[in-house]
Amino acid sequence: MYSYIPPIDDYRFLLGEVLGFDTAMADIGKDVDADLAAAVLEEAGRMCADRLHPINREGDEQGSQLVDGAVRTPHGFAEAWRDFAQAGWASLSADPAYGGQGLPFILQLWFDEMMAATNLSFGLFPGLTRGACEAIMAHADGALKATYLPPMISGEWTGAMALTESGAGTDLALLKTKAVPCGDGRYAITGQKIFISSGDHDFGGNIVHLVLARLPDAPAGVKGISLFLVPKFLPDDQGAFTVRNAMSVGALEKKMGIHAQPTCVMNYDEATGWLVGAPNKGLAAMFTMMNAERLMVGVQGLGIAGAAYIQAAGYAKERLQGRSADGTRGPVAIIDHADVRRMLLNIRAFVEAGRALGGWTALQLDRAHHHPDPAERIRADALVALLTPVVKAAFTDFGFESAVQAQQVFGGHGYIREWGMEQFVRDARIAQIYEGTNGVQAMDLVGRKLSLGDGAVVEGFFDLVQADLEAAKGTVIADASLTALALLRSTTTSLRGAGVDAAGAAAVDYLRFFALVSMGWMWSRMAAAAQEDSPLHQSKRAVATFFANRMLPQADGLAASIAAGEGSIMALDADAF
Amino acid sequence: MYSYIPPIDDYRFLLGEVLGFDTAMADIGKDVDADLAAAVLEEAGRMCADRLHPINREGDEQGSQLVDGAVRTPHGFAEAWRDFAQAGWASLSADPAYGGQGLPFILQLWFDEMMAATNLSFGLFPGLTRGACEAIMAHADGALKATYLPPMISGEWTGAMALTESGAGTDLALLKTKAVPCGDGRYAITGQKIFISSGDHDFGGNIVHLVLARLPDAPAGVKGISLFLVPKFLPDDQGAFTVRNAMSVGALEKKMGIHAQPTCVMNYDEATGWLVGAPNKGLAAMFTMMNAERLMVGVQGLGIAGAAYIQAAGYAKERLQGRSADGTRGPVAIIDHADVRRMLLNIRAFVEAGRALGGWTALQLDRAHHHPDPAERIRADALVALLTPVVKAAFTDFGFESAVQAQQVFGGHGYIREWGMEQFVRDARIAQIYEGTNGVQAMDLVGRKLSLGDGAVVEGFFDLVQADLEAAKGTVIADASLTALALLRSTTTSLRGAGVDAAGAAAVDYLRFFALVSMGWMWSRMAAAAQEDSPLHQSKRAVATFFANRMLPQADGLAASIAAGEGSIMALDADAF
Repeated sequence: MYSYIPPIDDYRFLLGEVLGFDTAMADIGKDVDADLAAAVLEEAGRMCADRLHPINREGDEQGSQLVDGAVRTPHGFAEAWRDFAQAGWASLSADPAYGGQGLPFILQLWFDEMMAATNLSFGLFPGLTRGACEAIMAHADGALKATYLPPMISGEWTGAMALTESGAGTDLALLKTKAVPCGDGRYAITGQKIFISSGDHDFGGNIVHLVLARLPDAPAGVKGISLFLVPKFLPDDQGAFTVRNAMSVGALEKKMGIHAQPTCVMNYDEATGWLVGAPNKGLAAMFTMMNAERLMVGVQGLGIAGAAYIQAAGYAKERLQGRSADGTRGPVAIIDHADVRRMLLNIRAFVEAGRALGGWTALQLDRAHHHPDPAERIRADALVALLTPVVKAAFTDFGFESAVQAQQVFGGHGYIREWGMEQFVRDARIAQIYEGTNGVQAMDLVGRKLSLGDGAVVEGFFDLVQADLEAAKGTVIADASLTALALLRSTTTSLRGAGVDAAGAAAVDYLRFFALVSMGWMWSRMAAAAQEDSPLHQSKRAVATFFANRMLPQADGLAASIAAGEGSIMALDADAF
Repeated sequence: MYSYIPPIDDYRFLLGEVLGFDTAMADIGKDVDADLAAAVLEEAGRMCADRLHPINREGDEQGSQLVDGAVRTPHGFAEAWRDFAQAGWASLSADPAYGGQGLPFILQLWFDEMMAATNLSFGLFPGLTRGACEAIMAHADGALKATYLPPMISGEWTGAMALTESGAGTDLALLKTKAVPCGDGRYAITGQKIFISSGDHDFGGNIVHLVLARLPDAPAGVKGISLFLVPKFLPDDQGAFTVRNAMSVGALEKKMGIHAQPTCVMNYDEATGWLVGAPNKGLAAMFTMMNAERLMVGVQGLGIAGAAYIQAAGYAKERLQGRSADGTRGPVAIIDHADVRRMLLNIRAFVEAGRALGGWTALQLDRAHHHPDPAERIRADALVALLTPVVKAAFTDFGFESAVQAQQVFGGHGYIREWGMEQFVRDARIAQIYEGTNGVQAMDLVGRKLSLGDGAVVEGFFDLVQADLEAAKGTVIADASLTALALLRSTTTSLRGAGVDAAGAAAVDYLRFFALVSMGWMWSRMAAAAQEDSPLHQSKRAVATFFANRMLPQADGLAASIAAGEGSIMALDADAF
């Protein structure tokens, strides 16, 4: 395999020339500039390339194992985790009040991209820990926060989210795990959870599970779900966490990919837990975790696509097959063949636009948390809410498609394990499924997010996109994106007030359409910022035109498909399937 | 897993009501009618469902192993092969002169679909044996034919195709394996081949390798390649095949999928072989194998998609999550959700049209071989040549996408191995790569097949499609397909005389566009034939409309992307990638 090359030049370009990072930080009173940010990313990239990338392939082959009821992670993972935590990488964007470094979320997001690019299985450990911290921070009482946050933020301890049960996945209303009050502020949690990422490991330290369960008197459905903090180790009389809680790994899930990641079936047998947030308000607390996680999952697609691109481009420049287009030379490197370039450019046009759009969204999240003006915070928060399902679903769909195309560049060698291309495909696939399937994301966008502020949020976003595109009018990318935006706006209007079936029938196509226009917007902004003769600027302009010419045209078909409505989808009886 | 349901009702519908099977057979003087054909398919389907499907999952988990230099196939494979051969399934469409049953190729093709649906790894054994027989039949001398064809056709022996080397895949000009004449009509073959499906096994019997190699005085490039028959066992003095030839399995390839299939690295160390066909004409002989194989590989995509559909539809009707669209009932089966139906219908709209289009192409192949009028044979042969890359690439692309969508219906459970959905994805992936990658198929279509007869072949095909669609004018599917066909015709004209880069830039999008229109044609024919109130006829009309409304619109985007040309693809220097 080729070495992983962290996309620092691209980050630097986006921070300094496209996204207005310095101004954004000044707006929210953060004392970080683009140079410092790039330096942090460079250091983070080095860690990913030097420590996480080398153990990724072997981690896939070995997988995590369950030995005598305990998880054994693959060779090198525990050591990598120790070094990762000691160097402070677990606490990058966390709250300084609990030991975090308080760096902006955009750095965390791009760091997540590089972790996914080099070792998705590993990246889930800090990722889920961060999600758990967010929920504790937002909903737990002061005592729980003081006890659990500092060691989780430092990376001494890790976190896990225990939501799904075998009969309750997308529909958590069906979950059955029980929580019985012990009378002393503690609860006894009993039930089985499945698909629990990082549910156990051998890194040392405590593992803090956040478990959804029902109180005895809870109403039926989602209004009767509460969230509990259930640590693997409970405090003894001296307050040291040495007492094993009544929870155990029932099995490791055997999965298509992310083999190094210990995805657990967890059994809780009257395990001791504490309530996080109010009784029966667990779903809201869970969504605090989920929303943060969903942006991270989106950039997982991005990360794998970028990593697969590096391999495929490297291979395409070295692999000799066929003759030059004029027939005079052969064998030539396959990068000379138009179809190979087309595949590489498809990946790149997504990755670079995704990186920009993810970064833009992350800056809005920073703004939502830290802007001094409450109205600005609300506005930014609504934009994040709007874009979260788009980032999650579109980035992971394009990410998977990118991994498949990068594998295709290798021909038969792409199907052989040693090259690592098929691992990208297997690993990328999970991101389309977990943290809410991409169909659920699309329904969230169409069913909920389009009606935020009675449609004002999405219209506001479109206005913003339109203004940027109009400022660049006359370029191929801006003009094509403006046309697509107009079609997206009319499609959006047509979906206003759509029934559940109409929304469901349109959702996945609509989300892809929305993402294509958003990427066109980012390509237009990048092309406008890239007016010099440097190789980076030249590439940006060329790929922007490629995107306009060869990817954005998908939008027409999607619009037509949406316009056809739900009739032919709902026509057949269920038993005709 | 749900049981595999062979699509016999669909075959019967196509044979009797859509494809005019009885007339087609009468035209070529074959004494087979639709009832007999359906009976054969029913028996074949029973064998696939009862013998091949049950060993598919375990075959994936165990994989083929290399033990002391010999391949050990997974549990049950050798027994299944023995029964398969004894029941005559290896000889279905083979020439009666050598022990075959001489049944029409369309039955073989649909049998291939069912084999791929139930056990792709297994299906490659008879599939490659058949390819090898085709080449021997067409190019070998009488003695080789008499010796090798009968036991290969009966299934006592199997075949393998040894083409690829590590430095020579798509571009066979680069291959290095050598063949030195021994002076007695035999040759000594030396070299290493990779990716050799069914290169060795433990079924008993001989394994007949067809090996591409260079003679000492051969011209450079593809004009210096010859084909050799190299059996695992050579005849002893009594003519019994007991003498081990100097060839060995260097390793088994570790692959993303088709784990049960022993894909070998083969070493030939002065192995004894015989020339098949004329010296330096090996490429033509190889294409005899390849063309037959490519149709088979296409229906592999179809088979896996159909099998994945059965699982996903079964699951969707049983899995309870969420509420009904009107909010009054819950949990409901997920088949009630529009997005789940959309995914299932995407699969089905491809599978049923593909089955029809594959069947139509197979009937042309039967016509090309057996029609009494040479002009009809030539015409049919040209249509097969035109459609072969379309069937191979589009069916395997849609097949893979179908497997991914079927997996998505299962949510998290789709990512877990035990459900078998992720195996479909991993197994389906190979069909986009082997027997010429789908990019190579697309280049074959655009670069060679469009100019057959100076464009008359493709125009003749379009005329035929147009006539059928015009006859059904006024239906949603016929009207939408006519519009798409007009656009395809003008796109085709615009590609006439395109340079290598322009053709390469357009090829993959063009092939998909071509396939969509061809499927629209088949949906129109099926809908026109399905005018009764039976469940099957109702479903056909509904899915035809779905295809027109929700899949065919992709054609517009593809046309726009092709029209944009190769400029933005070729703009960057190779080192900018």
